[in-house]
Amino acid sequence: MLTEKALEQYRQSDELMILPMGGFGEIGMNMTLFGYKETWFIVDAGVQFCDVTTIGAEVTIQDLDLLKEFKDRISAIFVTHGHEDHIGAIEYVVGILPVPVYASPFVCELIKLKASEFGAQNRPDLIPVSPGATVDVGPMTVGFVRVTHSIPDSHALVIDTPVGKVVYSGDFKIDPAPLDGQHFDKQTLKTLGDQGVRLLLADSTNAMVPGRTSSEQEVIQNLMEIVKQIEGRVIISLFASNVYRVRALIEMAHACGRRVALVGRSLGIYQQAAERAFKLLPPENMVDPHHINRVVDSKIMVLCTGSQAEPRSALYRASNMDHPDLRIKEGDTVILSSRIIPGNEKAIGRMTNNLVRLGAHVINEKMAKVHASGHAYRDELRELLELVRPQTFVPIHGEYAFMRSHAELAESCGVNDVRVLENGDLFAVDETDSTVLKQFPLNFHFVDGPLVGDAEQLRLSERKRIAWSGVIAANLKATRGRKKWIIKLDVQSVGIPILQEGLMDRVADYALEQVEALPLMASAPDMETCLVMAIRSFFRREMDKKPVVLPFVEIKEP
Amino acid sequence: MLTEKALEQYRQSDELMILPMGGFGEIGMNMTLFGYKETWFIVDAGVQFCDVTTIGAEVTIQDLDLLKEFKDRISAIFVTHGHEDHIGAIEYVVGILPVPVYASPFVCELIKLKASEFGAQNRPDLIPVSPGATVDVGPMTVGFVRVTHSIPDSHALVIDTPVGKVVYSGDFKIDPAPLDGQHFDKQTLKTLGDQGVRLLLADSTNAMVPGRTSSEQEVIQNLMEIVKQIEGRVIISLFASNVYRVRALIEMAHACGRRVALVGRSLGIYQQAAERAFKLLPPENMVDPHHINRVVDSKIMVLCTGSQAEPRSALYRASNMDHPDLRIKEGDTVILSSRIIPGNEKAIGRMTNNLVRLGAHVINEKMAKVHASGHAYRDELRELLELVRPQTFVPIHGEYAFMRSHAELAESCGVNDVRVLENGDLFAVDETDSTVLKQFPLNFHFVDGPLVGDAEQLRLSERKRIAWSGVIAANLKATRGRKKWIIKLDVQSVGIPILQEGLMDRVADYALEQVEALPLMASAPDMETCLVMAIRSFFRREMDKKPVVLPFVEIKEP
Repeated sequence: MLTEKALEQYRQSDELMILPMGGFGEIGMNMTLFGYKETWFIVDAGVQFCDVTTIGAEVTIQDLDLLKEFKDRISAIFVTHGHEDHIGAIEYVVGILPVPVYASPFVCELIKLKASEFGAQNRPDLIPVSPGATVDVGPMTVGFVRVTHSIPDSHALVIDTPVGKVVYSGDFKIDPAPLDGQHFDKQTLKTLGDQGVRLLLADSTNAMVPGRTSSEQEVIQNLMEIVKQIEGRVIISLFASNVYRVRALIEMAHACGRRVALVGRSLGIYQQAAERAFKLLPPENMVDPHHINRVVDSKIMVLCTGSQAEPRSALYRASNMDHPDLRIKEGDTVILSSRIIPGNEKAIGRMTNNLVRLGAHVINEKMAKVHASGHAYRDELRELLELVRPQTFVPIHGEYAFMRSHAELAESCGVNDVRVLENGDLFAVDETDSTVLKQFPLNFHFVDGPLVGDAEQLRLSERKRIAWSGVIAANLKATRGRKKWIIKLDVQSVGIPILQEGLMDRVADYALEQVEALPLMASAPDMETCLVMAIRSFFRREMDKKPVVLPFVEIKEP
Repeated sequence: MLTEKALEQYRQSDELMILPMGGFGEIGMNMTLFGYKETWFIVDAGVQFCDVTTIGAEVTIQDLDLLKEFKDRISAIFVTHGHEDHIGAIEYVVGILPVPVYASPFVCELIKLKASEFGAQNRPDLIPVSPGATVDVGPMTVGFVRVTHSIPDSHALVIDTPVGKVVYSGDFKIDPAPLDGQHFDKQTLKTLGDQGVRLLLADSTNAMVPGRTSSEQEVIQNLMEIVKQIEGRVIISLFASNVYRVRALIEMAHACGRRVALVGRSLGIYQQAAERAFKLLPPENMVDPHHINRVVDSKIMVLCTGSQAEPRSALYRASNMDHPDLRIKEGDTVILSSRIIPGNEKAIGRMTNNLVRLGAHVINEKMAKVHASGHAYRDELRELLELVRPQTFVPIHGEYAFMRSHAELAESCGVNDVRVLENGDLFAVDETDSTVLKQFPLNFHFVDGPLVGDAEQLRLSERKRIAWSGVIAANLKATRGRKKWIIKLDVQSVGIPILQEGLMDRVADYALEQVEALPLMASAPDMETCLVMAIRSFFRREMDKKPVVLPFVEIKEP
């Protein structure tokens, strides 16, 4: 698909090449390739969690086959921050492209810890980079600029290229009061803007949401107001990656006279990564999860995972009375301090019902300001555009509608050259112009346990089909008699609705009748076709289904 | 499960029996049974559309097996209004309980039209009832009281029983300006309240939403403001059942100098039902859907189905460039005048992206007030409680959390006896007390095309399992040789990921090795067990999967 000839042609061009591999048109699986002549590198390698419509896979990742064709040309992966939709695919990518991964110290620790806790198919060669530092990649230089987001140590990238400077925002918000005191680096971005930025690519997640995000400090204050009113136990579920919200809630709990227990494996992992990267001391005076019930109700706050009702998470299990340490009881208040991610509404609703059944009062982001988004709203996006004042603008990271809306915003801010790219668009930028050279059709890959492959290799549509239609195995042995066939037929089924007894006998009788009527000279393939057709037509008539038939046919000559 | 003895016991009791069969703890599949001595009747019989987690069925309905046990005792079905979650299961219920269905004239016409358009498993005996009319059922009388909702001809039921009056709200809002001029009948409800209401059961859908719903007229006005600003084509998708919103939009379009085309089969069906029931004239000056493209952009408004991105709906097909009449183009404005129903967010998001890709500007309920809910918000629910002032209150129709919240509201309004029931709770009410007598475990049924059965009959979990794990059919023929087995093994697969060639040969070789090692005296069942175990252990090792194995084993004695 990507020929040597094409790669050679790009090598001879004086243009910067940009190839979106994921995240341009969806939330998740972010990856963008940058290339200049023979030098290419990758920015981010994330997964997208499959929704329930994709049966048979847990996550979607980029087109590894297309990536493979860049082999030997790609020399590095740069990571903006540590969310799964930016780092989750690294283990698969480094399996085919064993290149170093440049990331913030926190992200490096996180990748190491996750690999040792959950296992990883391949472990990358990690190189920590701090804000302000730069890395040379052939004729380009990549620098890290501090931004604020909902996970610590998040960065925009500044890519210095022969055609000019490129700013890649990563995921960001402009938080005026970040909990870790690490401010969004407006000054550097403004200076870049003064010097002239050839191209800005920026996060579009909340491009359609007017106004500005709340700050993390506001969330903590709101939660404190709520917690102060509560006499029973307080259980707050949140994303483990929001390390400093966890820290701030522990402090807030102490201020309210409550001790804290952390429940859920990933809370520990992210805290540990932060402790290593930022030399933080572990929080003090914590309650061992096993001992939650030894603390008086008014003196405890539980922080736990499960805000998205993930089946193995602490809160989900507690809602099903299936958690060894966390047992919900009358008088508990459960606060979901997180976004309700689209696609998870029903699962979160069911979990909420179960929590309420067990006697808990549940508060979510729709009922009180108990969460702040990590993604800039429209006014913050405008601010970034005004700081950077790029010659060309490309929206990234978002549904197509969000990117289009972000593009319109950029136009209204006076950017002349605004391009909405989709995954697979090879975008070429020189000092003055920009153009889409080519559209690569992408064949996304999927991960199903230890297996990684495309939809065809993983048989995704076949697997959906058998769930709807069922499978029949049929074993037919025929003997060509003098005057007629002597046939023995056995059938078995799986996934076929059985509303009456004798259904399988009836299908066998019907199919037998059909094959017995075949002329005596019929071949084994003829007989197999007849058998399969008979079974399928029986089920079409009987229940409007076309099961998959797995036939074994043997003809014995007398 | 429901014994004759139990039914006899209820017959001898002086209590009114209420048995929720669906809708108490979920949105959808509403049904409530009322019984006094030997007389029982059903209120509503709706479906719940399956979400994508239920592979293999389109809708969930009530426990038909439990219903069957009431045979001969149930004498009627009363219908509050014509939404699918209140009438969709009637065709299945009357198949086992051939009783008359009492409904408003509009609902009767609707059921008839839908049966002839889409087919129905059974056609009910329909008896139209108008507001104010009453129907005697044994010692009870059922009356229809006008309420406002998002479909015409909606009613609350007033059930006069030996233990006192019962008000069953059905779905409702209190719309001060209903488009059909048919007002919510506060006076009747207030008079009932003055006389004394033993029990109120009321809609909890929006019990957690503060304030009051907007009126339908407000929606039309807001839409008019938006449409006036638009120069290109206007395409509005909405629920076909909101018959008068469709009518009002046609008038509004005319006022804005636009002609209207209705696109989507169900829009026609609901309009026709209304024309028959209310003696309405068909709207004038309509554009034939085939001729949409003949009208100038600024002079047309298209009303269509598909606000929930249903795969066969008009707007969904148009978003995929797959509708014969409706082709989206640059400059179109698409307005989704409807709620984004939880569970449909992702599908609606994908449809929106495609509409934007085709050049449309999309407006939804989050961006402008282009929809009003048909279900009362909290202040309206309080108003109903204050009108009716019941002795006992039971929240109905909603997630468990919503019903609980509604119960708290009723307590705060001074109702002393408030009961949150769940599906299957047999609730007994006498003149002064109320109690849950018994909890019937319910075994919901599902509809998969022409098939209706429970989860086990439809093999729902088996079908999910084969989608995740795949199926192997294996045909083994063994001959007991003198010193060793002579074995022939064929295997076939479906739904098994194939990442390398030769996988099926490898599993066959491995399984063959295992069965050949069996002692020569092994029986056919021994061999079958060994074969199945070998195949499963191969796949567990190879890809962490346990496929379903369908084995055929034959041993020939020499």
